[in-house]
Amino acid sequence: MSTTGKQLFTTLESDGTLTVAIEDATFPDPVGDQVLVRMEAAPINPSDLAILVGAADLENADYSPGKYVATVPEPFNSASRARHGLKLPAGNEGAGTVVATGDGDKAKALMGRRVACVPGHAYSQYCLADAGMCLPLDDHSAEDGASSFVNPMTALGFVENAKMDGQDAILHTVGASNLGQMLTRICREDGIGLVNLVRKADQAALLEQLGATHVVNSSDDDFMQRLCTAIDDAEAFYGFDPIGGGKTVDSVFKAMEQVAVGKMTEYSRYGSNQKKRMFIYGRLDTGATILTPSYGFGWTLSGWLLFPFLQSAGPEIVGRMRKRVLENLTTTFASTYKKRVDLEEMLTKEAVIDYRAMKTGEKYLVTPWK
Amino acid sequence: MSTTGKQLFTTLESDGTLTVAIEDATFPDPVGDQVLVRMEAAPINPSDLAILVGAADLENADYSPGKYVATVPEPFNSASRARHGLKLPAGNEGAGTVVATGDGDKAKALMGRRVACVPGHAYSQYCLADAGMCLPLDDHSAEDGASSFVNPMTALGFVENAKMDGQDAILHTVGASNLGQMLTRICREDGIGLVNLVRKADQAALLEQLGATHVVNSSDDDFMQRLCTAIDDAEAFYGFDPIGGGKTVDSVFKAMEQVAVGKMTEYSRYGSNQKKRMFIYGRLDTGATILTPSYGFGWTLSGWLLFPFLQSAGPEIVGRMRKRVLENLTTTFASTYKKRVDLEEMLTKEAVIDYRAMKTGEKYLVTPWK
Repeated sequence: MSTTGKQLFTTLESDGTLTVAIEDATFPDPVGDQVLVRMEAAPINPSDLAILVGAADLENADYSPGKYVATVPEPFNSASRARHGLKLPAGNEGAGTVVATGDGDKAKALMGRRVACVPGHAYSQYCLADAGMCLPLDDHSAEDGASSFVNPMTALGFVENAKMDGQDAILHTVGASNLGQMLTRICREDGIGLVNLVRKADQAALLEQLGATHVVNSSDDDFMQRLCTAIDDAEAFYGFDPIGGGKTVDSVFKAMEQVAVGKMTEYSRYGSNQKKRMFIYGRLDTGATILTPSYGFGWTLSGWLLFPFLQSAGPEIVGRMRKRVLENLTTTFASTYKKRVDLEEMLTKEAVIDYRAMKTGEKYLVTPWK
Repeated sequence: MSTTGKQLFTTLESDGTLTVAIEDATFPDPVGDQVLVRMEAAPINPSDLAILVGAADLENADYSPGKYVATVPEPFNSASRARHGLKLPAGNEGAGTVVATGDGDKAKALMGRRVACVPGHAYSQYCLADAGMCLPLDDHSAEDGASSFVNPMTALGFVENAKMDGQDAILHTVGASNLGQMLTRICREDGIGLVNLVRKADQAALLEQLGATHVVNSSDDDFMQRLCTAIDDAEAFYGFDPIGGGKTVDSVFKAMEQVAVGKMTEYSRYGSNQKKRMFIYGRLDTGATILTPSYGFGWTLSGWLLFPFLQSAGPEIVGRMRKRVLENLTTTFASTYKKRVDLEEMLTKEAVIDYRAMKTGEKYLVTPWK
């Protein structure tokens, strides 16, 4: 017995034609530790957008009910050549009710329960998910649990990674994002120093309401000076950036080095010995990362992804993180949504253009059965 | 009783005026574990050039015996603001004879012996050096030992660092440099895979004579394809680059990722899970480092400097490295010199312009008593 339902697929052809459409799909019966989840809510996170819309020309796309066809311009189309011709599902995470399970004990224990899951194809009425990655939501609603993985585990992952590396302060380049707000609450709870960068005064005010102590506004004329002061105060030489392109990381490294050089008693042509560490965990700006030779050789920049981090952290730490998320789902890890759309509504011109803008506080929630 | 002799100093004023001049200097008596070395030979390494000449306009400088005055253009002058007004010595390493020592046992054991040392002011007739960093040269000449620290320990450091990180292959972006040749010999001796990048056919030929197995010429039309093949063959996802500016590291990361993606059975928008690691250990190109979003998130780029590495490696490993250098000083770790100049001769227009060009195989040796 297999199950049928609507599912979103995204296909990029080699000529740059992107087709995103809702189709009738058949879901095989779950086996082993798989569960079949009737999906009730799935967020559109920045990390979903690359595959969902990417750099497509949304203004001039061809929209019809449950479908749009757009063109992905160069160089973005060629950069995506690995997916040319592939029909891909989308949606990292979501929540719903387990309606069938495989024979595995982990799976059977979830039968009939509401869970959050990370199927990778959450924009769908049904999903096959790994029971080991499901979080039973108990009395919480599907909407409460829909965003319980990507942002909460990423924000917690930053703090865990910092602790592993012996750091007790973090810098975050997009402080006011949904993830940034969670990070602000976590750092406050754990006594971890946090330097938040924002772009606007109202974002700074929002973070200060959450108890943030070091908020620096990049629109201020004396931004670099304030950034140095904040880094110095918090002793934050370790940070995370989802922008990727441009000079954000470069500015942060410069400020960190300026603080360190200010404490040196003797000139060194090689710069300070202060170790400076940054991670790029997203690509909100798909331009090149620019690193100027302005901060010696004591720096390290890495890409950062949630799943490889969780794998390296191991099951004990991951279990502790998930437990903490569940216990604080509607407080520390709460997400808010601007709008709820079903699968067809998420492919209208108005919706696609709106959620691709990724404005702070304007996240969309997909509710496939609405 | 103090000693007097000639010494080179380099001073950059805030207006960009760079004065490099030989002066009469007084050297205090060594104390504790210090030794006073009568310097007989000191190489001009790329790492010495930044402080010695930097980006100064050497064509239009004012040359007089034992002195030149040049202008450092922007943005290089402002980037060097930390040294404005400071009169600095120069010359990382050299070799000579110990003529006086402090009271420390380590120092006293070196009295009268020929040693290699790392005083940081080697362009001088005398140097105060730390006995612990001196390498007794026994029957070797000062010229044999002059370059026994910076290049040999850096090349060995790459291999030690790779081993610490569980790697058995290295990529080096300037294969034919003096350091690159040493690295080729070391990797061959140690059974470490090595991918060498070069810019010219004669450099490739030189390395192949040394037994290099993977040499890729960036002037070839099919460079990227050959680079991928070499990385794949050697399984080299870990490398070192002294160029720094531009897209060298970017090209290497792209090739590494291309090799890894070629082995994947399923598309991932996040790229491969293959960890890719590069280190920038110099700034032959002082432009910005450009990193395009073309290789997922599984990459790490760091600055790399010899002294912090040695400090983290600890005395046992450093001792083993130094012993290996001494035992193979005229073979594995041999340096060759294009020209020998005394302190005055090293400040002539012809010499300065020639050694700043840093051409492969054209290293200068300063012989202060010639």
